[in-house]
Amino acid sequence: MARKSLPLSKVYGLLEPGPVVLVTTARGESRDIMAMSWHTMMEFEPPLVGCVISNRNHSFGLLKATRECVINIPTVDLVEQVVGCGNTSGTSVDKFERFSLTPKPATCVGAPLIAECFANLECRVVDTRMVSKYCFFVLEVVKAWVDTSVRAPRTIHHLGMGRFMVAGETIKLKSKMR
Amino acid sequence: MARKSLPLSKVYGLLEPGPVVLVTTARGESRDIMAMSWHTMMEFEPPLVGCVISNRNHSFGLLKATRECVINIPTVDLVEQVVGCGNTSGTSVDKFERFSLTPKPATCVGAPLIAECFANLECRVVDTRMVSKYCFFVLEVVKAWVDTSVRAPRTIHHLGMGRFMVAGETIKLKSKMR
Repeated sequence: MARKSLPLSKVYGLLEPGPVVLVTTARGESRDIMAMSWHTMMEFEPPLVGCVISNRNHSFGLLKATRECVINIPTVDLVEQVVGCGNTSGTSVDKFERFSLTPKPATCVGAPLIAECFANLECRVVDTRMVSKYCFFVLEVVKAWVDTSVRAPRTIHHLGMGRFMVAGETIKLKSKMR
Repeated sequence: MARKSLPLSKVYGLLEPGPVVLVTTARGESRDIMAMSWHTMMEFEPPLVGCVISNRNHSFGLLKATRECVINIPTVDLVEQVVGCGNTSGTSVDKFERFSLTPKPATCVGAPLIAECFANLECRVVDTRMVSKYCFFVLEVVKAWVDTSVRAPRTIHHLGMGRFMVAGETIKLKSKMR
């Protein structure tokens, strides 16, 4: 593990391919982990991320109250824990304990990083105008961490009903696109 | 090729894993294709999709004027065309001709389907309140098509700077999550 600060201009490359992420939130004694696939980049720098966090989730209330969270990106070795987090409710279970995930203090926000994830994005809520209709939050990534020892992260991509596509080979083409 | 209508309730499984898509728009004699990675599901049914279409793109004006588009999902055999579409401007080039992509009439919208893509989602714009600040459109999928002969589509997932992750193996876990 070689966790290093990642320049904010490079954050989009982590989220664009569409991995399942684990969102962490915390308020006082309460904390939660939520599995999430409904997210998109909205701006390169500062990096803005739009995401849907349902009001049926325990995380919704914590995020709305604190306006802070961490987006943690897991690889396939954590898939059992990811499904576990998606199938339990944070109202009755401490998911860090239940799934043996390690909370680590963040630098800029109150929510914890998940140590086992290869990347962690500390986020603040910057726009809530689509929350009441769609539960859609706009987040700004204020600090990013990545394990530089992980070259081609085998991220997981939800297909529905417990099926996941695992990241395959990487190809490179000549392109002017960022 | 066995293009069939897909129930709208199953659309999310196509977009959740985060593939690069080709967005088609058309207005009178003008038409365009845009490569896009910044999209997310926002609701299961009717399926809502949020996406960023930059106002630096020719497609932006066509979409704003017609409020209709098609989201076409390519597989890795089309990666050269995808990068080509991303690196040319629709103001000066007809991308269908330049990249030998075949337009097919849609059922519910004026924009064409791309015949070479394994899935096509006919969309209407339903919310523009985040367009002026983020170029973020909320689309409703009104008709969906999929080539049922493609079992595990080798979609491509943008990592930045012409690098793409190609969809790898599929795994299945027990889950209550939709």
